Amino acid sequence: MKRKKTKKIFLRNVPIGGDAPVSVQSMTKVPTHDTASVVREIKKLEKEGCDIIRVSVLNRSDAETLKKIVSLSPIPVVADIHFSRELALLAIRQGVDGIRINPGNITRKEDWKIIAEEIQKHGTVLRIGANSGSLPQDRSGKNLSPAERLVASAMEAVDFFEKEGVEKIKISLKSSSVRETIEAYEKISLQTFWPLHVGVTATGTSDAGIIKSSLGIGSLLLKGIGDTIRVSLNDTSLREVRTARLILRSLGLRPFGIEIIACPGCGRSQINILKMAKSVEQNVKGLKKDLKVAVMGCIVNGPGEAEEADIGIAGGKGEAILFKKGKVIKRVKEKDIVKVLISEIKKIQ
Amino acid sequence: MKRKKTKKIFLRNVPIGGDAPVSVQSMTKVPTHDTASVVREIKKLEKEGCDIIRVSVLNRSDAETLKKIVSLSPIPVVADIHFSRELALLAIRQGVDGIRINPGNITRKEDWKIIAEEIQKHGTVLRIGANSGSLPQDRSGKNLSPAERLVASAMEAVDFFEKEGVEKIKISLKSSSVRETIEAYEKISLQTFWPLHVGVTATGTSDAGIIKSSLGIGSLLLKGIGDTIRVSLNDTSLREVRTARLILRSLGLRPFGIEIIACPGCGRSQINILKMAKSVEQNVKGLKKDLKVAVMGCIVNGPGEAEEADIGIAGGKGEAILFKKGKVIKRVKEKDIVKVLISEIKKIQ
Repeated sequence: MKRKKTKKIFLRNVPIGGDAPVSVQSMTKVPTHDTASVVREIKKLEKEGCDIIRVSVLNRSDAETLKKIVSLSPIPVVADIHFSRELALLAIRQGVDGIRINPGNITRKEDWKIIAEEIQKHGTVLRIGANSGSLPQDRSGKNLSPAERLVASAMEAVDFFEKEGVEKIKISLKSSSVRETIEAYEKISLQTFWPLHVGVTATGTSDAGIIKSSLGIGSLLLKGIGDTIRVSLNDTSLREVRTARLILRSLGLRPFGIEIIACPGCGRSQINILKMAKSVEQNVKGLKKDLKVAVMGCIVNGPGEAEEADIGIAGGKGEAILFKKGKVIKRVKEKDIVKVLISEIKKIQ
Repeated sequence: MKRKKTKKIFLRNVPIGGDAPVSVQSMTKVPTHDTASVVREIKKLEKEGCDIIRVSVLNRSDAETLKKIVSLSPIPVVADIHFSRELALLAIRQGVDGIRINPGNITRKEDWKIIAEEIQKHGTVLRIGANSGSLPQDRSGKNLSPAERLVASAMEAVDFFEKEGVEKIKISLKSSSVRETIEAYEKISLQTFWPLHVGVTATGTSDAGIIKSSLGIGSLLLKGIGDTIRVSLNDTSLREVRTARLILRSLGLRPFGIEIIACPGCGRSQINILKMAKSVEQNVKGLKKDLKVAVMGCIVNGPGEAEEADIGIAGGKGEAILFKKGKVIKRVKEKDIVKVLISEIKKIQ
């Protein structure tokens, strides 16, 4: 997969676009005026691999805490602004690394102009973030599709801010429909060189949300589209970051700790492979190593997969074979498999 | 997305390929000779939307129960055969709807020939299922990539069985690498008109497994490739089926009960949207209605998303607005939101 070429911009020290690695974003879920909780959440997310954080700005008291949040956050902070020009200006003056405005609810050109001026004074990055749930009326008379309306709405703002001299822009076009999202980003990627922030919005709860995000973000990344991603889940921000990192790892775009290649366990398996894989996963959680570990139930694909992995086991009757880089190291009794595997993983430098 | 045209075959009464809906498969996880447990698992999966079931055949005692399983199973049964020609023949004679053979571990042409003859006597569907973990040695001298080796291994068997007169074939090419899987299926889809069984193998535990399956299966389906899918998870077969159905629903390919469009809940939300969405999800679980329900935390995208949904709520301060097909129905106090929403959902015919 060849990555579509976009202009590289910097959000504080984080590069976005060009040849920069695809960065991971999330959004804090506590009220922004509760600064201590916000900063705690950001630090936790940063440890999990979050590169950029966004915070919502609902009112003046949220906006007024931004300076403090920016100063305490280990990663760049983007203020999420809707409806209000005043809140946008206030956020910029507080020194946020970026602001996101929604062209569907700050719609007047005179507001855009004043925001553009303030951005230029402070060197703020601008994200133009259109959402299918908050699109302006379609006045084109062309009966545009929802994806085309998303593109038209964002591009109108992009053109305006470019002309006003804003030099660091990124764009998002989110819909709760996977196919609409993909269509919109494919279209806009042909029309702009600004980096794209990719995500599906309002994806739903747990598994359904993870599936929709993987489908939308993943198929765009596979087409080379997407410079920074946000998984939005009706779940914790930590799970959003983990899901994003797992998507990038699964596509070979960025490493993310130990990858367990585990077979699904069918009637053929003579060891309890489901329990064993979960136990290995639990035990390696904290380890900062980028390894592939195979946990396979039987000899059908076990040795083959274990060969592709850095280390692995393939189960037999009441025992397993331990592999390292394709070589059989030893036989291990079922009750010792997890213990031995973990100890061998820890030995790998 | 335009579906790639494949030949339609029937597995018992289930059409695969051509214009047939993409069907969902899973595999039982208990030993096959434990017939009662196998049948119980199959019935549970069928209720959840599983169209086809595969059972592993490890030995004679597994094979000898197949006739009974086939007679008690509400959905077509495929016997999963590795290594042994004898088990393949036994399974076919037991009247299974399909058998899967792995050209990586039943490799001799004389075995293929005898299996082909038995298949023709019984009208069995043949799945040729290659796996990256059990590929034969690459004797082409062409230094093939793993994806190319998968294709070459499967196509050699396909050509052979076609020439022997086998009339109902489907093909799978599974790898534990998402990109290898995608590459292999893309290549083979240009070389054959037989329907494709799509899946990623040995995906890993819980979230990681769901993500890899969504990425691999989803991006192929978006390219029009895939006639029947299996999600393999190091988890229950029930979760495999649910994940598969959610992938199909998210891509608009098949309905699957009530879809909840829930926002991720940020600092802007003044109601507890995470808890609320989960509670709605729990309450609608059993309902057999194909609806979109929006559960949105605030007015930014809430009303917009609620408009696209059949019914939904958008939160405010201590209350929410209830929408139906884009029209505001009433205001509801926070404590009553879930109750009122569920009751309105139940009223929809």
